[in-house]
Amino acid sequence: MDSKPIRMVTVPKAVIKRLPMYFRFINQLIEQGTERISSRELSQLMGITSSQLRQDLSYFGEFGQQGYGYKVVTLKQAISSIIGLEKIYNAIIVGAGNMGKAIAGYPGFSRRGLKIIGIFDNNPEIIGNKLGSLDVLDVKTLPEFLNKNPVEVGIITTPASVAQEIADILITAGVKGIWNFAPVLLHGNKNVIIEDIHVGDSLMTLFFKLNKNK
Amino acid sequence: MDSKPIRMVTVPKAVIKRLPMYFRFINQLIEQGTERISSRELSQLMGITSSQLRQDLSYFGEFGQQGYGYKVVTLKQAISSIIGLEKIYNAIIVGAGNMGKAIAGYPGFSRRGLKIIGIFDNNPEIIGNKLGSLDVLDVKTLPEFLNKNPVEVGIITTPASVAQEIADILITAGVKGIWNFAPVLLHGNKNVIIEDIHVGDSLMTLFFKLNKNK
Repeated sequence: MDSKPIRMVTVPKAVIKRLPMYFRFINQLIEQGTERISSRELSQLMGITSSQLRQDLSYFGEFGQQGYGYKVVTLKQAISSIIGLEKIYNAIIVGAGNMGKAIAGYPGFSRRGLKIIGIFDNNPEIIGNKLGSLDVLDVKTLPEFLNKNPVEVGIITTPASVAQEIADILITAGVKGIWNFAPVLLHGNKNVIIEDIHVGDSLMTLFFKLNKNK
Repeated sequence: MDSKPIRMVTVPKAVIKRLPMYFRFINQLIEQGTERISSRELSQLMGITSSQLRQDLSYFGEFGQQGYGYKVVTLKQAISSIIGLEKIYNAIIVGAGNMGKAIAGYPGFSRRGLKIIGIFDNNPEIIGNKLGSLDVLDVKTLPEFLNKNPVEVGIITTPASVAQEIADILITAGVKGIWNFAPVLLHGNKNVIIEDIHVGDSLMTLFFKLNKNK
């Protein structure tokens, strides 16, 4: 069954937040060889109500067929297209420490369309090292690199103290998005999307729950 | 079965979610040498309303003094104690790839009380390697290790396909918390807190926003 074209309605924040989760679960189902799934089963798997699920998916078109459930592959295609996974985003990483290496080396990200074309550091002992097929470049050459190469996404895995300085260079060069691993609030402007992932926040949350739970 | 049995005594979920952010901002203030801050300034910095801030903090005691604002150090101590940062948690990491290394090597986590006492992998080429002061151990020895050493937190940085198997071993051994980096929903029980951090979800969110924004 064809899904209707995507309606360009404003998708609520809460639904956006659940999109990656939908994508993750649907991928799991495909790996397990599931072809169809009812909204009841899928919602149980994801720990949400089935009316919630149907409502969320209604933002993206019509997938379900009464009594037949969702065709998993169709659902995956639709969600991929909503997220924009058919695109390739050129990206650079600033900070070639362990986290930078983890991002650069994770095959799942390149499969999703993140193409790392440069990695930078300020540490003379790291500059020049090979990271996969890339040489770690001197961060001093970052503005020049951005000037010569089309880069949509800048990934910041530096210490907090220099993250804003790097963000400013990225924004000046016109990157469209920043994926920020540094534990600081970056100041940007309306032309750039900043997506923070604060790994330490998740650890603090675990600690808090352990502390409450003892 | 619910994999996240959070016993919510008095503090609402939304406040818990903001706790690490408070901690992060207060640390930034201390690093900048700020001694006192008004609720108006702090809330502006954090991008929340000042009544929200005052209400959040009211769950944790009385910090503010009318007209004098918050003493930053007092605020830090209080929030540290709420999160439980004065404690040391013995932890092990399963998965000695880049993400495992990044977690093991990040000084901020050990400063917060996460003490990594073991790291495990199933790859013969990685087993036996030094990671800081630790040798990467064979994951086959994990149950025995857990039996001999008190471990409160298990950190899973394995591929998704083996994460549940590892979680089961950790839960059977009686760990109190699991910090899960694998992109799957783990099934646990009411005695274990599972905190997920799905780095890929954050990338999907960035992609979605870039896709909408173009």
